[in-house]
Amino acid sequence: MSQYPERITIYEVGPRDGLQNEKSIVPTADKVRYVDLLTSAGLPAIEATSFVSPKAIPQLADAPHVMAGISHGANTRYPVLVPNDRGMVRAVEAGVREVAVFTAASESFTKANINTTIRQSLDNFESVVALALANGIAVRGYVSTAFGCPYEGYVAPPSVLEVTRALLDIGVSEVSIGDTIGVGTPAEVESVFGLLLKSIPAGRLAAHFHDTRGTALANVLAAMQLGITTIDSSSGGLGGCPYAPGAAGNLATEDLLYMLDGMNIETGVDLAKVAEASIYILGVLGKQPTSKYLQAYITKKGMSAA
Amino acid sequence: MSQYPERITIYEVGPRDGLQNEKSIVPTADKVRYVDLLTSAGLPAIEATSFVSPKAIPQLADAPHVMAGISHGANTRYPVLVPNDRGMVRAVEAGVREVAVFTAASESFTKANINTTIRQSLDNFESVVALALANGIAVRGYVSTAFGCPYEGYVAPPSVLEVTRALLDIGVSEVSIGDTIGVGTPAEVESVFGLLLKSIPAGRLAAHFHDTRGTALANVLAAMQLGITTIDSSSGGLGGCPYAPGAAGNLATEDLLYMLDGMNIETGVDLAKVAEASIYILGVLGKQPTSKYLQAYITKKGMSAA
Repeated sequence: MSQYPERITIYEVGPRDGLQNEKSIVPTADKVRYVDLLTSAGLPAIEATSFVSPKAIPQLADAPHVMAGISHGANTRYPVLVPNDRGMVRAVEAGVREVAVFTAASESFTKANINTTIRQSLDNFESVVALALANGIAVRGYVSTAFGCPYEGYVAPPSVLEVTRALLDIGVSEVSIGDTIGVGTPAEVESVFGLLLKSIPAGRLAAHFHDTRGTALANVLAAMQLGITTIDSSSGGLGGCPYAPGAAGNLATEDLLYMLDGMNIETGVDLAKVAEASIYILGVLGKQPTSKYLQAYITKKGMSAA
Repeated sequence: MSQYPERITIYEVGPRDGLQNEKSIVPTADKVRYVDLLTSAGLPAIEATSFVSPKAIPQLADAPHVMAGISHGANTRYPVLVPNDRGMVRAVEAGVREVAVFTAASESFTKANINTTIRQSLDNFESVVALALANGIAVRGYVSTAFGCPYEGYVAPPSVLEVTRALLDIGVSEVSIGDTIGVGTPAEVESVFGLLLKSIPAGRLAAHFHDTRGTALANVLAAMQLGITTIDSSSGGLGGCPYAPGAAGNLATEDLLYMLDGMNIETGVDLAKVAEASIYILGVLGKQPTSKYLQAYITKKGMSAA
């Protein structure tokens, strides 16, 4: 029989990663209610919003209002994404206790996504992280395209290791390794995480899988067997740059939680309450879930998400 | 690093399990074309149709014509489902070389599905199997509800073992262990298959998972780690008694194959050709795929399945 961790930390990205990709502007009150529903489900970490430029992404211009409006659960952290010093200053002003910065393992994607080289992105983050740490704020780092790049295809595991190490070196406490385009399989999970774990403790790594080709939960299984205990997911499967309506992006929190519950792996999270949070926000957005668990849940209850 | 089999036999159930659940009657020529497309994809086993009573299931009344119409690939087996002696006689007349019989691990499901007790179903199959073996025809057995029953809930692994052993005892060569309602997780895969494998060689077992809650590929991973080398799946994800339109039933062959290809596990099957077969039959049915891989494939190609 395989060995699995006794406990997994689910890092919920729906409110940030899910809503930043929506074209429509979701009212602040709906965002707050969505985060509050996720908090009441017992999620230990909810990435609540992003302090990006309001000009660049008007959908998230209300970030300070979201942070002021949500009920802060005693057992929940509310990290926010910050792209640069200006965002970091705004996050400090908003009283944020944890932030995340975002780079990638392939040059073409980094160029297209944040218009820098990987090296420049790391240089830019040095002052962001310094400012965070000076304010007692923990920093998470994201490494995108760790399993493949939409422009370059194959990404070599040593490239993932290099940028992960660089993030840790500038003071990031945890690095989330992302399969941005959902191409990874358990074999690649073993080669990428296997390499990282030779020199980095499992507790400083998180796995961020996309379910674009249906492999996300199998990848989670492989990552857990390697000792990874923090898994990113998005309620309802929202966000994660899916190819198109109907296609899946982020691994759905419900699918992840259903599997972990069935394996008696502790999370502290209530599956039905996550489902209700997803149904709420999907109703606001007028969307159907990509989560298979949630599709079955909705059908069984005779409900409609949107 | 985990150990996986070098080679997996994919047992394709789309033409039988997929089409028997369709309300509309698919023209025989379309069924034949669908099977031929699957054959050209290199699938080693394609469950082509079912010799059920034409009165009971008029959709499959053309079973002999399907078997006469398809191009028999040199490297492909074409098993058919037979429910009873009468079906077996018709299958022999049609020149079938391999059949499958169907029972379950829970009494309530067996009663509801085939209106017998489990014991009666096994008694009925004795003459079916004897007739098959007398004609040199191999028999596969299905054990449904092995991971949970829609009426009884939890199904104890010893019940699965008992019916599996009984099928082997009457002369069945391979038993497919089915998660009919898609509730299983890797922990249950380990307990059910773990028990079976104490007394039954892995080569006589197959795993049949449903993706209703998104866990099918993770379950495949767990089954492969236990040494199972035959996996059932359905092209496009067709069939498998999904709860409702949009909800997933059978594990999709494309999702399975994408994962196996990524893990360098040999199957001899061409993923793009399976996708084209699915797109063909989904077009005939006017349906969207539940396969996540196929959704991404269709979107990327700018196509429409239906």
